[in-house]
Amino acid sequence: MPKLFSFRLIATDDAARRGEITTPHGTVATPAFMPVGTQATVKGLSPEVVRATGADIVLANTYPLMLRPGAERIAALGGLHAFMRWPHPILTDSGGFQVMSLSALRKLEEKGVTFRSHLDGAMVALSPERAIEIQRLLGADISMQLDECMKLPAGHAELERAMHLSLRWAERSKRAFEQAPKGRALFGIVQGGDDRGLRAESVRALTGIGFDGYAIGGLAVGETPEAMRNVIEHVAPMLPADHPRYLMGVGTPADLLEAVARGLDMFDCVLPTRNGRHGLAFTRHGPINIKNARHADDSRPLDEKSPLPEARTYSRAYLHHLFKANETLGAVVLSTVNLAYYQELMAGTRAAIAAGRFADFAGEIRAGWSARADIYPEDQGDVAPR
Amino acid sequence: MPKLFSFRLIATDDAARRGEITTPHGTVATPAFMPVGTQATVKGLSPEVVRATGADIVLANTYPLMLRPGAERIAALGGLHAFMRWPHPILTDSGGFQVMSLSALRKLEEKGVTFRSHLDGAMVALSPERAIEIQRLLGADISMQLDECMKLPAGHAELERAMHLSLRWAERSKRAFEQAPKGRALFGIVQGGDDRGLRAESVRALTGIGFDGYAIGGLAVGETPEAMRNVIEHVAPMLPADHPRYLMGVGTPADLLEAVARGLDMFDCVLPTRNGRHGLAFTRHGPINIKNARHADDSRPLDEKSPLPEARTYSRAYLHHLFKANETLGAVVLSTVNLAYYQELMAGTRAAIAAGRFADFAGEIRAGWSARADIYPEDQGDVAPR
Repeated sequence: MPKLFSFRLIATDDAARRGEITTPHGTVATPAFMPVGTQATVKGLSPEVVRATGADIVLANTYPLMLRPGAERIAALGGLHAFMRWPHPILTDSGGFQVMSLSALRKLEEKGVTFRSHLDGAMVALSPERAIEIQRLLGADISMQLDECMKLPAGHAELERAMHLSLRWAERSKRAFEQAPKGRALFGIVQGGDDRGLRAESVRALTGIGFDGYAIGGLAVGETPEAMRNVIEHVAPMLPADHPRYLMGVGTPADLLEAVARGLDMFDCVLPTRNGRHGLAFTRHGPINIKNARHADDSRPLDEKSPLPEARTYSRAYLHHLFKANETLGAVVLSTVNLAYYQELMAGTRAAIAAGRFADFAGEIRAGWSARADIYPEDQGDVAPR
Repeated sequence: MPKLFSFRLIATDDAARRGEITTPHGTVATPAFMPVGTQATVKGLSPEVVRATGADIVLANTYPLMLRPGAERIAALGGLHAFMRWPHPILTDSGGFQVMSLSALRKLEEKGVTFRSHLDGAMVALSPERAIEIQRLLGADISMQLDECMKLPAGHAELERAMHLSLRWAERSKRAFEQAPKGRALFGIVQGGDDRGLRAESVRALTGIGFDGYAIGGLAVGETPEAMRNVIEHVAPMLPADHPRYLMGVGTPADLLEAVARGLDMFDCVLPTRNGRHGLAFTRHGPINIKNARHADDSRPLDEKSPLPEARTYSRAYLHHLFKANETLGAVVLSTVNLAYYQELMAGTRAAIAAGRFADFAGEIRAGWSARADIYPEDQGDVAPR
């Protein structure tokens, strides 16, 4: 008997929260980082490897999957869990963000958005109802409402219009979701850009509709780090404490520590895998650009204290060689190492919150990143991960 | 205490041989297939995955590694086994074949070959002595003499000249190898193209010099399958029974069965990984071109009887999707599946030879390949693997 969605708060430490989400496909310890499996695969990694990095849940993107191989096809093949061989929890986005950021020739109307497929040029319609239907067909444990996400900076009138449209779509998403199999969850998305009043109005209206969880959308879209922090600091305390809080599309390890401190529970980001493919490793000593020539003769591993064997055993010299020689294994190893570092960081936050020492933990982690000059002086000058 | 190189013949069945090679880094059950790790990596796969496919030994190519990252650098980093995290036996080629097939602007002389590096344009010299030194620096368990490999068809005079040069280089390789650490092995390479007299002369001279093993070179270079079979049939019985026999660069699963039947012990080929990257899977039912549209809705695995979990669990529909979406995981899975199929085939030959039923075994395997029409009729018309 699959379990129904629920959220349990286990401990708090100032604003930081340690919790547990239950879904039909298993539990998720929070704070949780969700690796991104855009096209039903976390790029280059088998589900077993993703699991071994410590992930409880992955995110899959509705936009590419609705176009290829198609939601109906995935449903006929037994749903996304079976299709991608990930038997654990899956969250799907609504497709809205990617339609608006990736596709040309789109038309935004009250009823939904119409866009031209980049694969075959066909016109495709995405409404709140269709977005929910697609996520039902995929079999997502957690679905997201369709929303309109504005790039920043944007004017007040535009932010207000988009936020109000997102609220009307939230209501329609909620209604459409009543058809979903029991136990699955639907999250609402707070919009309003960097405008505190609009954000507050969005939170009030969404909690009035009532969702299983609440996401902060419309960040990491061009604003300054300070603006992002301000929005999170403003919005997080308004969100109901008894539901999970999901910060969409964020961010660096430093961003995650900031957001956890402010009471956020769930995160997703392509940085660990994208940077891994480009030769950037996240470690407890800060970022390492493995393509840099100074690693060519370095027999040390990326991170000798990592719980992940790959981080402790492959030499920097070998990984440098793999990237110089355009060998895929380099991208595979660094993606794995980066996901494991994100998960180790999240596990650390969970233990620290439970022990009532999150602020100390965050300080130690940040000291590790900045102490790199003492430990690995030759990594000075490596490219920042973002 | 690392063991010294040795070869033990365990069983024979007509000409087919079941044996065991001992090296300083472990034993190799023969007949053996060696995955190709051109640039110190079997493309896309971790050493653990390569091992899990059943490989006892891998081949690494001297030519790319001498140019990048360089043999001296790999030696300083602890040798190739440590560098690529493959603690098991390694065979290296001499670099000669790839210098001649890959590099432009080469000059062949008695002393050796000079060529222009494709990486930085520098002129690089490779002599029999330098080829042995490079392989010593890499730390290969089995090194190969430098030889000149002719493309076929070629005239008698050219084949004779190249074969005689290869013999003189064999003598120089043997002499240079006297400096090698104890326990490592050096193989001679039989040349002579498709000329039976030249091949016989090459065998006589090489066995006179005396090597730890004997390879048949100069095949899979443009000749017909029948010509290849004729050379193998002619040369194999002349090779000393108490040393391993290595057929270089061959081939398809069908080629391997033919060669094992004629008494060959060792094989290497890029086909399982190269075809895997291009969407072609080797299975007990014959080849499957997973990019073919008819696989898009097929929930069956590639090979439900494979000992490899990946072959039994990923659906054809999912693998088809990965290739259509240009997702690396597709190439990784098919490369793994193909290597595992090659190893399963080799394990089958070993068991069959030991049981005195190799001919029956080969017949059953071939029947499986051709019975595909009955089992998977929709795979009719898939591209042949070579």
